[in-house]
Amino acid sequence: MLLYEGKAKKVYSTENENEYIVFYKDDATAFNGEKKAQISSKGILNNKISTIIFKMLEENNIDTHFIKSISDREMLVKKVEILPLEVIVRNITAGTFCKRVGMEEGIVLDEPIFETSYKNDDYGDPLINDDYAVAMKLATRKELKFLREETLKINELMKEFFLKMNLKLVDFKIEFGKDSNGNIILADEISPDTCRLWDVDTNEKLDKDRFRRNLGDLVEGYEEVLSRMKNL
Amino acid sequence: MLLYEGKAKKVYSTENENEYIVFYKDDATAFNGEKKAQISSKGILNNKISTIIFKMLEENNIDTHFIKSISDREMLVKKVEILPLEVIVRNITAGTFCKRVGMEEGIVLDEPIFETSYKNDDYGDPLINDDYAVAMKLATRKELKFLREETLKINELMKEFFLKMNLKLVDFKIEFGKDSNGNIILADEISPDTCRLWDVDTNEKLDKDRFRRNLGDLVEGYEEVLSRMKNL
Repeated sequence: MLLYEGKAKKVYSTENENEYIVFYKDDATAFNGEKKAQISSKGILNNKISTIIFKMLEENNIDTHFIKSISDREMLVKKVEILPLEVIVRNITAGTFCKRVGMEEGIVLDEPIFETSYKNDDYGDPLINDDYAVAMKLATRKELKFLREETLKINELMKEFFLKMNLKLVDFKIEFGKDSNGNIILADEISPDTCRLWDVDTNEKLDKDRFRRNLGDLVEGYEEVLSRMKNL
Repeated sequence: MLLYEGKAKKVYSTENENEYIVFYKDDATAFNGEKKAQISSKGILNNKISTIIFKMLEENNIDTHFIKSISDREMLVKKVEILPLEVIVRNITAGTFCKRVGMEEGIVLDEPIFETSYKNDDYGDPLINDDYAVAMKLATRKELKFLREETLKINELMKEFFLKMNLKLVDFKIEFGKDSNGNIILADEISPDTCRLWDVDTNEKLDKDRFRRNLGDLVEGYEEVLSRMKNL
């Protein structure tokens, strides 16, 4: 049964009440849905790439919702209730950060920026701080501390992983969910839709900015990421 | 010599290299300068109100730039270099916070919200978090910790002070500066231009929202605040 349809994925219930199926669609959206397209096979690429990343993280003791890939576009996952927070890490300045504060793109930060935004399309997923999250009852202080620590660990693992394939992890967005035991685990997807990935030598963008900024064929970029992953 | 002219104040150098004069203008602006007016005597009222608040804070061991009031519109202050941060505290939901995240106005928060924004009109003084401030080299982690602690102390003192005159301190914006010894002290002004003040019994707004939202004569509101202060 379809439980939820988002911009890039659908979530279905299964016969097992603790498991969901995530279906990766071909829809591409940017600027809070203002720019839209159907990009054939994007869903397949993101499912495959997410699968590889979730497996890598699980091997490194990060708890995720990933159980297994069950088809080209479908992933079996643990049932979680998604926290209404977008968690973002930035290693190099780009995107919204630069627009917001007027900093140049491409500056390597001395330490990563961790930020959270309130997951709500009506308000454009606004940046918030911990006091906001607590006041809005989105998370407790203890949960926010865990999210920060866990996310910075994930960042280190992913940075190293992508660097092995000659890619710079510029920034990424992740989401967490609460499982049936109340544990907070990594959920959603991790793909070139949700990470900025630049080639180390050329700075070529192999992520959704190809779509956002018309920088070349999106599928070619995502295929390049997947092929580098497979060659590891 | 005029050193700086802002939206509501001018800053002059003096013969003493460690002292400035702040001149309070009658200009009222809102929405990052989109709405403007000249409101006769506003500058006088804000100078008087700020003087009383700075004195109260100094008596309670908060270091401020205030030295003394020297005329109806002029205040002698310590020379500081203003930090490029607007520091905001919210005790009751209102204003930008509500617009940003879609929360109703007037909700009393369990604990105050502390937030900082990057003081830059070109970018609309955007909300930032501590990681942003550090990345942008606006302040160090140690300075940010001090700003939070000092601001929450100031909030408690001001809440109590205004409550004595039957006013709720809804939220306020303050700025800090570095003096010639590198100490961070409270600077700028504290007035109904920079604080939301609601009557405890009627919730009548006695602050700049009268101007922003056309809620009645601004001077009447500010005079009411000053007169309650004088009757303490």
